[in-house]
Amino acid sequence: MSRVRVAAFSVSLDGYGAGPDQSESQPLGAGGESLHEWMFPTRTFQRLYGDKEGTTGIDDQFAVRSFDNVGAWILGRNMFGPVRGPWPDERWRGWWGEEPPYHVPVFVLTHHERPPLEMKGGTVFHFVTGGIRAALDLARDAAAGRDVRIGGGAATIRQYLEARLIDDLHLAVSPVLLGRGEPLFAGLDLPALGYAPTEHVASDKALHVLIERRQGGAALPADDLA
Amino acid sequence: MSRVRVAAFSVSLDGYGAGPDQSESQPLGAGGESLHEWMFPTRTFQRLYGDKEGTTGIDDQFAVRSFDNVGAWILGRNMFGPVRGPWPDERWRGWWGEEPPYHVPVFVLTHHERPPLEMKGGTVFHFVTGGIRAALDLARDAAAGRDVRIGGGAATIRQYLEARLIDDLHLAVSPVLLGRGEPLFAGLDLPALGYAPTEHVASDKALHVLIERRQGGAALPADDLA
Repeated sequence: MSRVRVAAFSVSLDGYGAGPDQSESQPLGAGGESLHEWMFPTRTFQRLYGDKEGTTGIDDQFAVRSFDNVGAWILGRNMFGPVRGPWPDERWRGWWGEEPPYHVPVFVLTHHERPPLEMKGGTVFHFVTGGIRAALDLARDAAAGRDVRIGGGAATIRQYLEARLIDDLHLAVSPVLLGRGEPLFAGLDLPALGYAPTEHVASDKALHVLIERRQGGAALPADDLA
Repeated sequence: MSRVRVAAFSVSLDGYGAGPDQSESQPLGAGGESLHEWMFPTRTFQRLYGDKEGTTGIDDQFAVRSFDNVGAWILGRNMFGPVRGPWPDERWRGWWGEEPPYHVPVFVLTHHERPPLEMKGGTVFHFVTGGIRAALDLARDAAAGRDVRIGGGAATIRQYLEARLIDDLHLAVSPVLLGRGEPLFAGLDLPALGYAPTEHVASDKALHVLIERRQGGAALPADDLA
């Protein structure tokens, strides 16, 4: 059954999913790379971006699982790029070069229309101006029975959590402090929204936690969200 | 050398050091006990409160260390008890019965004077109305070269962190979500205050993290805090 998932999303001890002051030279914000130290050595990451064999332990198992059975992605605008406001032109094509690691349709939340952008390897960026539910409907159709992965950033995940539209999350708590940045939890009462941790396991680099929406904690109808 | 320490302080994934709605029947707030699941089975805890032999692994090593070389404690008022406002009488004698686990002087921050309270086993509760620096001066004197442990709760630790008066912290991140409660990190930029993680190790119940104030990150003089 198709699930709406967050996976391999890293948070700091103080609850940030990215550092402050994102820019083209700092896609993850100041200090944000330290969140992902558990991911960089893995075979999964090295095959995408590195030149090493890569590790195959707990961290890689979570990295593998994060890409498994994903039929479409949803990204917030800032996760797609540093451009704010109306698109000045179509030169910005994402952080990931000409062949992004998605290989499926990716729906980018934005307030500004832009034609779809077809990349190498099967990734197509679609720009959705109709909000999180419209993006999810499109992503579900595109996923055709496979899962929809909400890639982030933190603000996008928070919106989907508040609407109870996410089925499960894998968070990787990294033993770092950012101090400022994009908060994942602030003001969000996850137990009240129906979410509870179900499993956890630690590698030497991160505490991996699985969180699920409880049975019966159905998504709120749109009418309840006004 | 005498250090000002936080030790064995548990926080949830979403950054709470206690649950909401503390009361006499819920000393740790709603759901707050789940923060301390790593501690309850340890030999250290079982010898204090339990009837089992107790575990001796990573979690107990941190529990042992948390009591090691402590010459005085500082507690926030709410960690001492559920009574708010002026003391109506002297009947409240702490959460811990007639022989509290401290066995040294304990300085309780309060706005309301009260005579010292001598308990069995060497614990004496002193009520300090002069603020966090006055309490620390008294605790340092009482500790006579041993460490001062800031026991909590979260609000008390936050005040001491903001003044850069804590030398090091051991936090235990528990894989639970509270949703509401007493936030440890919210609005606190620990890196800017000079704090950085130095070590971490996970048991199967918690991610233990050591955080230190960097050399040169001296406590702010009182004048800078106005």
